[in-house]
Amino acid sequence: MHYTFLGPSGTFTEQALLSVDKAAESTRTPSTSVPAALEKVLGGEVDAAMVPIENSVEGGVTATLDAIASAQDARIIAEVLVPISFVLVAAPGTTLDDMQTISTHTHAWAQVRKWAEQTVPHAHYLPGSSTAAAALGLLTSENPGYEAAICSPIVAEQNPQLEVLASNIGDNKHAVTRFVLVARNHEIPAPTGADKTTLVVPLPEDRPGALLDLLEQFSTRGINLSRIESRPTGEFLGAYFFSIDVDGHIYDARVRDALRGLHRVSPGIKFIGSYPRADLRNTVTEDIHQDPAFDAARDWVESLFPEGRPEHLRHGI
Amino acid sequence: MHYTFLGPSGTFTEQALLSVDKAAESTRTPSTSVPAALEKVLGGEVDAAMVPIENSVEGGVTATLDAIASAQDARIIAEVLVPISFVLVAAPGTTLDDMQTISTHTHAWAQVRKWAEQTVPHAHYLPGSSTAAAALGLLTSENPGYEAAICSPIVAEQNPQLEVLASNIGDNKHAVTRFVLVARNHEIPAPTGADKTTLVVPLPEDRPGALLDLLEQFSTRGINLSRIESRPTGEFLGAYFFSIDVDGHIYDARVRDALRGLHRVSPGIKFIGSYPRADLRNTVTEDIHQDPAFDAARDWVESLFPEGRPEHLRHGI
Amino acid sequence: MHYTFLGPSGTFTEQALLSVDKAAESTRTPSTSVPAALEKVLGGEVDAAMVPIENSVEGGVTATLDAIASAQDARIIAEVLVPISFVLVAAPGTTLDDMQTISTHTHAWAQVRKWAEQTVPHAHYLPGSSTAAAALGLLTSENPGYEAAICSPIVAEQNPQLEVLASNIGDNKHAVTRFVLVARNHEIPAPTGADKTTLVVPLPEDRPGALLDLLEQFSTRGINLSRIESRPTGEFLGAYFFSIDVDGHIYDARVRDALRGLHRVSPGIKFIGSYPRADLRNTVTEDIHQDPAFDAARDWVESLFPEGRPEHLRHGI
Amino acid sequence: MHYTFLGPSGTFTEQALLSVDKAAESTRTPSTSVPAALEKVLGGEVDAAMVPIENSVEGGVTATLDAIASAQDARIIAEVLVPISFVLVAAPGTTLDDMQTISTHTHAWAQVRKWAEQTVPHAHYLPGSSTAAAALGLLTSENPGYEAAICSPIVAEQNPQLEVLASNIGDNKHAVTRFVLVARNHEIPAPTGADKTTLVVPLPEDRPGALLDLLEQFSTRGINLSRIESRPTGEFLGAYFFSIDVDGHIYDARVRDALRGLHRVSPGIKFIGSYPRADLRNTVTEDIHQDPAFDAARDWVESLFPEGRPEHLRHGI
Repeated sequence: MHYTFLGPSGTFTEQALLSVDKAAESTRTPSTSVPAALEKVLGGEVDAAMVPIENSVEGGVTATLDAIASAQDARIIAEVLVPISFVLVAAPGTTLDDMQTISTHTHAWAQVRKWAEQTVPHAHYLPGSSTAAAALGLLTSENPGYEAAICSPIVAEQNPQLEVLASNIGDNKHAVTRFVLVARNHEIPAPTGADKTTLVVPLPEDRPGALLDLLEQFSTRGINLSRIESRPTGEFLGAYFFSIDVDGHIYDARVRDALRGLHRVSPGIKFIGSYPRADLRNTVTEDIHQDPAFDAARDWVESLFPEGRPEHLRHGI
Repeated sequence: MHYTFLGPSGTFTEQALLSVDKAAESTRTPSTSVPAALEKVLGGEVDAAMVPIENSVEGGVTATLDAIASAQDARIIAEVLVPISFVLVAAPGTTLDDMQTISTHTHAWAQVRKWAEQTVPHAHYLPGSSTAAAALGLLTSENPGYEAAICSPIVAEQNPQLEVLASNIGDNKHAVTRFVLVARNHEIPAPTGADKTTLVVPLPEDRPGALLDLLEQFSTRGINLSRIESRPTGEFLGAYFFSIDVDGHIYDARVRDALRGLHRVSPGIKFIGSYPRADLRNTVTEDIHQDPAFDAARDWVESLFPEGRPEHLRHGI
Repeated sequence: MHYTFLGPSGTFTEQALLSVDKAAESTRTPSTSVPAALEKVLGGEVDAAMVPIENSVEGGVTATLDAIASAQDARIIAEVLVPISFVLVAAPGTTLDDMQTISTHTHAWAQVRKWAEQTVPHAHYLPGSSTAAAALGLLTSENPGYEAAICSPIVAEQNPQLEVLASNIGDNKHAVTRFVLVARNHEIPAPTGADKTTLVVPLPEDRPGALLDLLEQFSTRGINLSRIESRPTGEFLGAYFFSIDVDGHIYDARVRDALRGLHRVSPGIKFIGSYPRADLRNTVTEDIHQDPAFDAARDWVESLFPEGRPEHLRHGI
Repeated sequence: MHYTFLGPSGTFTEQALLSVDKAAESTRTPSTSVPAALEKVLGGEVDAAMVPIENSVEGGVTATLDAIASAQDARIIAEVLVPISFVLVAAPGTTLDDMQTISTHTHAWAQVRKWAEQTVPHAHYLPGSSTAAAALGLLTSENPGYEAAICSPIVAEQNPQLEVLASNIGDNKHAVTRFVLVARNHEIPAPTGADKTTLVVPLPEDRPGALLDLLEQFSTRGINLSRIESRPTGEFLGAYFFSIDVDGHIYDARVRDALRGLHRVSPGIKFIGSYPRADLRNTVTEDIHQDPAFDAARDWVESLFPEGRPEHLRHGI
């Protein structure tokens, strides 16, 4: 297997990839952006890409939603949750009082802002292209323009020349980032009973109730939404698509049934994948939304045509 | 063909039956009640039964709904609309001033009540088992206990010994009754584009939103309800079933899809038939609820399994 | 107090009236029909009328719904449940084998039909204007045209000249009829926590979702429907109104809020009354649908206008 | 008046502010971040702040949503649409072939990425803290580490020492950014008939249909959503709030009514303002959702209490 991930090495994204079975022994190539990582997957250069999708500190969250939405054949095949924590690193001998400028990724800075205001109120912030790049800049550049960087503990471990001045400095001690492993459109992981299905659904038109029409396709089948995010399509202000996670697997009859209903309302819908939930929480539904109820309903309708439906009557199902 | 109808001869129901193609040349046997008529159909004694189903003056409306709901294999195959008008008949020589008692069916009396209060305020009312029976009683009984009867014009025409003292005496000049032709569960009339489908749907349980759940199965598929009537199931107070007419034919994909959804919510649902509308009004729906949209949705979902769905995954559809 | 009820004396309706506090000592005048009873109430002749409203054997159920719907100022102030049972009565000395014809009200006959087919299969049925009238006819008429009648036990008790040939002959041993006490539009009984509110709501127009729009006014406020019945308005086929009972009292904020929403969708709505439930079952709702939640919502919206809403801005609320 | 805006000077945000009536003659102080700008407003340092809220190239979009959502008393009082276009600037004499590194804000880079790949494929990208800062760095730093910057045309105009090497280089020629003017919670702009209302609504809990419950509060009152965006609350993964724009003004009865309904479902709701739409598009609604329908509904409910509601019955409304 050959993997890529949103680089550089040492980010939380590589950490997420390493939690995937056998990824540690596989080839892992960093990519400079989420679209670049997906291009490698879709072009066949690599087998799969690990990218952040929710609440990330490395950026790339909305970029990931947009990149996946616009890709033709991207499929999520796994998700990984990684607790996020930050350390402040500097060249050995540096003290907190010394530092005039700190560099890190903008999203990481946002997550340590309160700590920084209290602890190093005198320090300026300089944006870096990633947390790892900011940290490594302290080692590779003679005059990087800053004295300290904020990065993941893993980078500090991998680079013992960096001194850790402060640990666990994130403002939210329970911060978690969700990452997904994206592959080409070829196979769907087997259902586990604790699965998610990810969809991209364009909002059909600007009229009262369009979103309601979409959501009713889930509610009338007892399907729970675990995430819904709107993103502009970029075509014009007010044109949206929704990135949606629901509980359940496309192997569940209710999910397939909802997909058909959604396709009628919004034919541009994309199926992004069914895959095991990272939190292993089993999906619970009423009996009337489970496979046997769908089987019974199908059999009942067929029984209304005692001699079988006429051949020309294969519309829909 | 052998027909039965809610008798006796001369009622509006026979008039409805006569409008059916070739019924005039067929054997027509009256039945004394709607359940009796349906029993003849289901037992194979006759091919079909004409019975009133809506706004009738002969009674039998709620009786019809209940009888059809409890029959195992009844199928409506046609509907007929008959304008309702009434005449007052008596033995020749009788005048309005003479009459002390008037007989007719209770429901007919309800429909001429205002006319009677104004025109023959002194007359008493005596219930009869049907409008025709009341009229014929004037001829067959020496002392029927009443001097006049209210019946359909057809009975007066068929019995010229009766004198018509007043015509068109219904309080509502636009009264119409709807009749249905009920056959055994064997064939479904071909769709015409102006069709109705009749269903019997038990209300699943006494909880907020149960009826809403049922109705959403129609609304999310753009299906219009043209009639909904609740009837007690008779088991206990508060247990209902709904007798529902919707626009569309079971050959329409959206109707079959709604039937499957309804079956899950209320597995006791019965399909009572798809048949041409008497008013010939074409069903209008948005594109997203028509057969091609259902075909496209089905094909799209199948395309998500490039190598076909695993054999064990035939749940639902 | 002066009461009327759907007569004649000895019907289940009088029995229902007698269960009302102090009705036994009050003047009780029978009426010959439900509309006649309501006219006495609305005209001020009597204070209140007891009429059957659901599953009755005396007729008058749909008549009651229609009469209440068309009355201007009718208000239900109480409901009563009466278990229904029937007896077969005849002149002393008559045996089951003697009887050729049995009279009773049509609806009562429907409820003993199976018993009659098994026990007196040779007997003919003659419709009577009420169960009590059929029974009393055996006493008052020399040749009533029938040998036996089916009536309530109370009539048999009040008329010991009648011999009871068979008791408890109803096909459904748990049959119950619901009666309501109707008064003029002047006062609303105080809430008890176990209340019902009755409404008459015309279906606005023949379009997909009109009924759904009405029902959502209840569901979005957590209000349970305990009864919904459709009735033709009589204007034309397909024009309906709904007679609806919901759990709760107009003194509950959620009920008043729903009434306002319903009035917008269907301005012809009528409020028929809030009154204690006969079954004393308390209404259960989520916190978000109880008075404090409505109070908090109102206060919050007012707080958005720190200097008070402009005087001209009194629209709605 | 004293304004602040997301700085530095020369950004699209200042351009948006200049379109506000009399802002050109007022004091305008840049802020370094959206939270910083809002703090100045809420602390009383300035009267209002112009910040990007949708589809911006300066960043700050999700930051704005989050900052407004967490502010206690922020109110949007105006919105401004600004077409977005970009120029490539460099020190005089620089050519496209010379350039090895280009700096700009990350979001701006995302919007010119295709142009850059085609025109300057050899150039590297260096993140800057804003488009203006990147451009000005070319002038103020002797060795900024890059040869060219991408910025707004306004910065190039204000700094004639910069040479414009390429104009209108955005990948989407119709890109527009929406900005809002945020003030303290003191007054609401008068309605114009073409208004928007912005709300922040926490999703109550993770259950099927929670979002549906919220949306129905709009749909049952005929209110159109023009924007809905989900944002994590930051508390834990899966906890969301929705930033919502609807058509209409809090002076419209339907909007106040919806606010009350939403407050019951989600008591943490915040009202962020009612203000004129930048596109001047009038709000269209059915009669049943307009002020007179709400007035009639209120009057009708009050008429049901002929002697007025008891004083203790002031719950809700």
